[in-house]
Formats: sequence, structure tokens, C-alpha cells
Amino acid sequence: MNYRMIGNILGWLMLFEGIFLAVPTITAAICLESTFFVFVGTALFCIAAGLLITRKKPSNTTLYSREGFIIVSLSWILLSLIGAVPMFLSGAIPSFVDALFESVSGFSTTGATIVNNVEALPKSVLIWRSFTHWVGGMGVLVFIMAFLPLSGGQNMHIMKAESPGPSVGKLVPHVRTTALLLYSIYLALTLTEFVVLLISGMDPFEALNTAVATAGTGGFGLKNNSMGGYSPQIQIVVTVFMILFAINFNSYFFIIRLKMKEAFTTEVIVFLIIVAMSSTLIAFNINGIYHDLGDSFRHSTFTVASIMSTTGFSTEDFNMWPELSRSLIVMLMFVGGCAGSTCGGIKISRFLILFKGMKKELDVLIHPKQIKKIKIDGHTVEHEVVRSVNVYLVCYVLVFAVSMLILSFDNLDLITNFTAVASAVNNVGPGLDLVGPASNFSIFSDPTKIVLIFDMLAGRLELFPILLLFAPNTWKK
Amino acid sequence: MNYRMIGNILGWLMLFEGIFLAVPTITAAICLESTFFVFVGTALFCIAAGLLITRKKPSNTTLYSREGFIIVSLSWILLSLIGAVPMFLSGAIPSFVDALFESVSGFSTTGATIVNNVEALPKSVLIWRSFTHWVGGMGVLVFIMAFLPLSGGQNMHIMKAESPGPSVGKLVPHVRTTALLLYSIYLALTLTEFVVLLISGMDPFEALNTAVATAGTGGFGLKNNSMGGYSPQIQIVVTVFMILFAINFNSYFFIIRLKMKEAFTTEVIVFLIIVAMSSTLIAFNINGIYHDLGDSFRHSTFTVASIMSTTGFSTEDFNMWPELSRSLIVMLMFVGGCAGSTCGGIKISRFLILFKGMKKELDVLIHPKQIKKIKIDGHTVEHEVVRSVNVYLVCYVLVFAVSMLILSFDNLDLITNFTAVASAVNNVGPGLDLVGPASNFSIFSDPTKIVLIFDMLAGRLELFPILLLFAPNTWKK
Repeated sequence: MNYRMIGNILGWLMLFEGIFLAVPTITAAICLESTFFVFVGTALFCIAAGLLITRKKPSNTTLYSREGFIIVSLSWILLSLIGAVPMFLSGAIPSFVDALFESVSGFSTTGATIVNNVEALPKSVLIWRSFTHWVGGMGVLVFIMAFLPLSGGQNMHIMKAESPGPSVGKLVPHVRTTALLLYSIYLALTLTEFVVLLISGMDPFEALNTAVATAGTGGFGLKNNSMGGYSPQIQIVVTVFMILFAINFNSYFFIIRLKMKEAFTTEVIVFLIIVAMSSTLIAFNINGIYHDLGDSFRHSTFTVASIMSTTGFSTEDFNMWPELSRSLIVMLMFVGGCAGSTCGGIKISRFLILFKGMKKELDVLIHPKQIKKIKIDGHTVEHEVVRSVNVYLVCYVLVFAVSMLILSFDNLDLITNFTAVASAVNNVGPGLDLVGPASNFSIFSDPTKIVLIFDMLAGRLELFPILLLFAPNTWKK
Repeated sequence: MNYRMIGNILGWLMLFEGIFLAVPTITAAICLESTFFVFVGTALFCIAAGLLITRKKPSNTTLYSREGFIIVSLSWILLSLIGAVPMFLSGAIPSFVDALFESVSGFSTTGATIVNNVEALPKSVLIWRSFTHWVGGMGVLVFIMAFLPLSGGQNMHIMKAESPGPSVGKLVPHVRTTALLLYSIYLALTLTEFVVLLISGMDPFEALNTAVATAGTGGFGLKNNSMGGYSPQIQIVVTVFMILFAINFNSYFFIIRLKMKEAFTTEVIVFLIIVAMSSTLIAFNINGIYHDLGDSFRHSTFTVASIMSTTGFSTEDFNMWPELSRSLIVMLMFVGGCAGSTCGGIKISRFLILFKGMKKELDVLIHPKQIKKIKIDGHTVEHEVVRSVNVYLVCYVLVFAVSMLILSFDNLDLITNFTAVASAVNNVGPGLDLVGPASNFSIFSDPTKIVLIFDMLAGRLELFPILLLFAPNTWKK
């Protein structure tokens, strides 16, 4: 294990987090909030520590797959711990476990909150919460790699471990250029949403918060009723962008280069079909409540886009909807969006691989001597990928079951526990019943919050890095 | 596809089912019930049709894996359809879908009922319901194979497709002798329970019903409150036998031959540990209700044994227990008992393989060049088995999700739907809330009942045979 190199990258992480903290620091300065001192202090400490650690480059810069996983999981833990400090020290969130929950919920783009009255938070804390979504969405290490001069094979291990989806493709031969391209698309889309929200009548602070929270598919809001108080036009804009940020960013790269066939992959098409079908089904199911099919469709599409993109914004308390809609919403939490987006969830491409793999294996039962490959969009899915998706499912079920078991000790009802874990692992935000859109996660005990913190991180990093951190074999020579 | 041979075996099935129907026919005759005519009519029809069909042996008796699966799924469908006829024609269950539900629930050893007042059913119908558990528990085709002169390779395909568990081992070189041995153990254990129940104060009719329903881990009871009205002693006897019938029958074979190391496999030990730990946890959790730790332990052990063995008997309405117990019970539904027993559920051995496979694959992520095999009890688990367990999990999740989706249209609450599907797929019996131990499955619409019928059959046959029945490739030349 190359500890020096791991330390070095953690140093870079601190440096960058210090720079990120400029956003709330400046906000605090403009709004004359007393949180300024906490933010500027944390930022300066991070920058100083970062500079000190990264001053000397390790002589051996070799990184293997193992170091890739460890760097990613340790980075995210450090990122979240530092992110919690100003929320805690400023007194905005008086318990450190709560502050850590909020920070992990932010970076993991979950958007579940323990804050009862969001509207009472200082603006600098609000923007920091939303901004953590933006940083976490595309991946902080991907961001660092766009600037850091590492050799190709090295940062590929890191990129693989941090990026969502069963397999990571490079858009261009260089990982660094790929990272830059992805972040350019990300930034461009975020800015577009910001401008459109401004035009639609949001004030700049709200527009900025909403844009970065949508981009990272996070879902921290500025209001206690999330997006419920905004105009239908704004709600529709957010719906569209939630869908856009749930699509594989590679697609935008191909659209720019006018390669439409490559852009509209099976995954993207299946995603859009599920959005359309679920929205329609829910619209008719809730039409008894809203009496206007237009309104019903607006709320159903918003909700479906929010749940599948795992953003977690809400316009209505879908916890009060009929059981069919509630069940469908819970199921969509697990589906998630496309690989290579900022979404959580299991993701469409994994389901495609699992489903095609199942069909193939059932065929093998009938024709034992047949040799077949799984193909998606004309490309053969490597055996390694199929295997890793299968293992992913097993890990997923295991993490889910163990979390449920520990949550049960809080003696809350099954639906609350089930949807809280589903929401955390899939990085959605709200669940049903006691963790529905009108409620929050403050009801849980500290041990439960720690389990959910673990779930959110494990979900965002797609299980393997966090699980490997606890596997004894990882640390063996 | 060897259609003649498939038809031939279905003929044998009808013949045997005709013979099985002697049990309720004789009961009806002794109790002077008018159902006699329906039972004797169905029995004679089956025997006549069976004799007619099996009169001529097909010239080509070759069976491949494909035919094995088809024979098993068609046999079970035919078995259930015929089993439903007397319940329907006698007027005991006035709707055919309900009668089919009851019949499938019987043969699949689920034990979920749509009958509101079980105590009003004729004794002949009651014994037929319980007896279907016994027939379905060990497998009807395994039974037929003990008598039918098929060559070794032929019936191995059938045995593989019908027997529960990820891999089927032959106890002795001949499949036929293995089948005979298994049924001898099964019969001996059932008779032992019958005698012990008689001694404990049950009347012969009750003892017989309870013994066969426990043996098949089915759970149809004679009383509306299941086993709640019986003495603590009887409840303890049933607890012990539910545990015994949840253990791999191979273990008894080894115990008889005094090979204790082979008898107490990892699976058996893990099963017993889970029973002990869960019972203890629930006992302390429900102690507030019963105030007597002895009573609490009796009810918790009974419930855990009932749920894990997927029998589904109950002494108390565990639906009213605290949330921790409720959650644990739902999780145990999925676990099930040991492979090679009469249990449903995913089964301990599958979890062992999944868990060890996961550990191995996580190791591969860190040390990509390492080649490792999964071992259980010192034996290497074949790659084929590992793969088939992975596919099993995918099929399981898929069947579960689609079932949940269709059930949602009934607009009942999530917990009812979730536990109804869990109970059906795992062949348990009761669920929670509207399908709790104090309720039954009559609340569902016919389409929902048909989905649950599918789930019960698919669960009993461990998914592949039933799914293959609907795969177009199965029927291609």
C-alpha cells in the first residue's frame, strides 16, 4: 500500500476543499453573517494543511486498484468530516453527528436533512449545503484529477472507483481531458439552469442554490416545503433539469459532436420510457386529489423525475398519495437514473445487464452447451462487468438488510425504516411515513444516523470502496 | 422436446394424485360427509386418465435438462389444478380462483388461506389441505421417481428441477434409491411427530393434520387461531419438529450412519444459530407483552421456527408485536431454512454461497491476479453453482418487484403488499398487517390472487422451472 501517495492525494483534497469553502465564506461576507469567521477559519486551515502535505511529491507515485479504492473512500470521509465542521462550529447544527449527517447527505447528493426549520439557517450555511451537492455530484476526485498531473493509469483507478455506473468509459484517450470535458458539460448545464431559473422569476440566491442542488441531483432546498411554494413554471424548469442531470453525460458529449446514435443509448431510452410511463400512471392515480389533469401531471412528472434522478425535491407531499403511487415511488428509488450521470440508485444500465444476464443464464439451463455473450447497444459486455454487477447486487442486499436490522432497534414502523434506508443507499432524500417529504431525519437516534451516514456514503461510492475499507484483506501486505 | 415422454410423466402424476385422493375420500366416508362423492369422483377420474395415458410407454424415453424443467412446472400446475377441483365442486370454496389459490398454497407448502372460517370446513377438505403440504413438501415427482423405473440420468434432471437448494447431491449412486431414502426419513419423522402429538393430548385427526402440515412446512391449520389454542406442551413439540423439518434431510441420513461431521454442516449450524439468536432477541422484545420470560421464549421460538422453516403456524398474532420483532420476522421470511429440507425461502446455503462469493470478488478487486475458489465445508463450490445462485437472486428480485407492482393496483398498504409477496414467494403463509396471522388472503382481488398463485409456485420450484415455462427459447427447436 502506497501510504505516502494516499496521504498526498488527501492533502490535495484538503487544499481543494479549502478553495470550495470560498463559496460560503464570500456569501457570509456579503450577507454580513457571523458564520464568516467559522468558514474562513476552516478554509484557511484546509488550505494551509493541504499546502503543507502536498509540498513534497512522493518519490513512488504508483497506484494500484487497491489504492484507488482506499483513496476514494478515505477522501470522501475526510471531505464529509471537514464539511461538517463549519455547520457544527457556527452553531447552525448543534450536534456533531447531525452536522456530519447533513454534510454526508450533501456530498453524497442525498439531500436528506435533520434540520427541522431549514428557513432559519444562515444563507452561508444554505449555500454550503447546496454546493456540497455540486461537488459530490460529479465527484470531487474527478475534479481534482482535471487539474492534478497524474499519469493515465494512475488516475483511471481513482476515476473507476469514484464514478457511478458499472463500467467507466473514457470519452477521449486521456483521463485528465475526459475529466475536464465532463466538468465542462456539468458547468455549462448548471449555468444554463441558473439563467433559466432567473428568467422564470427566482432571485439569484435561490436560483444558484437550486441550480447546484439540481445539478448534483442532491435536493437540499431553501424552504421547508421544498419546491412546493414556487410557480408552476419554475417547477417545470426544475423537472426538465432533473431529467437532464439523470442522463449519462457521455450523451451530451456525443450530441455536441452530432453523433445521435451514440447519444441515445438503450439506457437513455429506457430511462425516458420509465419516466413517461410512471408519470402517466401516477398522474391518473392522483387525479382524484388535484381534479385537474394538468396539475396532476405536473406533480407526478416532478416527483418521478425527482425520485429517479435521486434528487429528492418535492412539490407535494407524495407520502399522502394513494398506495399505488407510493409503491411506485418506492420502487423507482431503487432504479435511479443512468450510469455516468450524477444520480444515485442502482441505475438503469445495471438493470439492463442483470436482466440480459438472467435471460442468458436461463438459456444456458436449457441449452447447456450454448455459449452466448451479453450485448448492449451492439457492444459485448465484458464478463468482468457482468460479474461485478452481480456482486454489486449481493453487496447491496447485504448492506440493505444489515441497515434495516440496526434501524429496527429504534422501534419505528417498517415503512419508515425501509424507505429511510432505501432513500439513504440510493441517495434520494425523502422516504415515506415518518421520513416523508413533509418530515425529516431528525427523528432517528444517533446510532441510526451513523448507519444512514454509512449507507449514504456507501451508496454514493457504489458500495465497493466503502466495503473494501472494512475488509481485512485490503490491508494485508 | 420429447412431448410424448412429458405426457407420459404427467399421466403418472394423475395416477398418483388419484391415489393421494384416497386420503380425503376415506376421511369423508368415515365422517359421513357429502364431499365423499366429489373426492371419489375426482380420484377415479384421475386414476382412469392416468392409466390410459401411461398404458403405452414412449419409444424414446430420453429426457434433457429442458424437459426436466418443463415436466416439473407442468406437473405442479396440473397437480394444483386437480387439487382445487374437489374443494371447488364440493362447495367448500365457492370460487375456482380461491380454490386454486388454496390448492397451490397447499402443494407449495405456503399455507396462506383465503378461507375466513377454517373451522367450518368439512374434515375431508381439511385433511386434503394438510395432506397437499405433505405431498408438496418433499416433492411429488421425487415420490413418483421412487417407484417409476426411469434410468439414472433421466430422473436426475427432474430431481434437480424439483428439489429445493442450489445443488442436489445424491445420497447413494442411484437416484431412485436416494428418493426412497429421503421419503423414508420423511415418513419416519412425520410418524414420530404424529405419535408425540397424540401423547401430548391431541386427538388423532388433529395430530395427523398437524403432523403432515409440519412435515411439509406448510402451515394450514384446523383452527382460526392456528396453534394458539393448544397447550404449551403441544406448541413446544410443534416448534421442535418445525426446526427438524427445516434441516437438510441428508443430515439425518448421516446421523443414522453416525457420521456426525457430515451431518452438522456449516448450513445446519448457521441455521440453528440464527434460530437461537432471533428467538432470544424477540423474546426480550416481546417480554413487555407477556411479562413471563418463559412464555415470551415459547412464543418467540415458535414464531421464529415457524417463519424460518416457512411453515407459517402461529401461537400469537405477531403482527401486534413491537416493530423490532416485526422487522426481524419479515427478514427471516427471506432467509428460510436449509437446502434439501421441505422449507421455502432463499435458504441458508444460498446466502453462504452469496456471501462467500462476495468476499471473493471483493478480494479480486484488490488483488486482480488472484485466483480463488469458494469453499464450504471443505468442498469447492462449482462455478456453475455460484453462477446459478447469482442468477437466482436476480430472478428473485425481478419476480418480487413485478409482483409488488401488480399488487399495488389493489391500493392496499405497502406492508400488506410487501409481506404478502414475501410470504408467497418464500412459501411462508402469513405476512403482516392485512395478511397477518389473525387475517387471511381473501381481501385480495382475483388478479392479485393469480399473481400470488404464480409466486407461490415459482417460489416452491425455486423460480427457474416456472420462468422457463414462459421463455420463448424453451419452446424453440
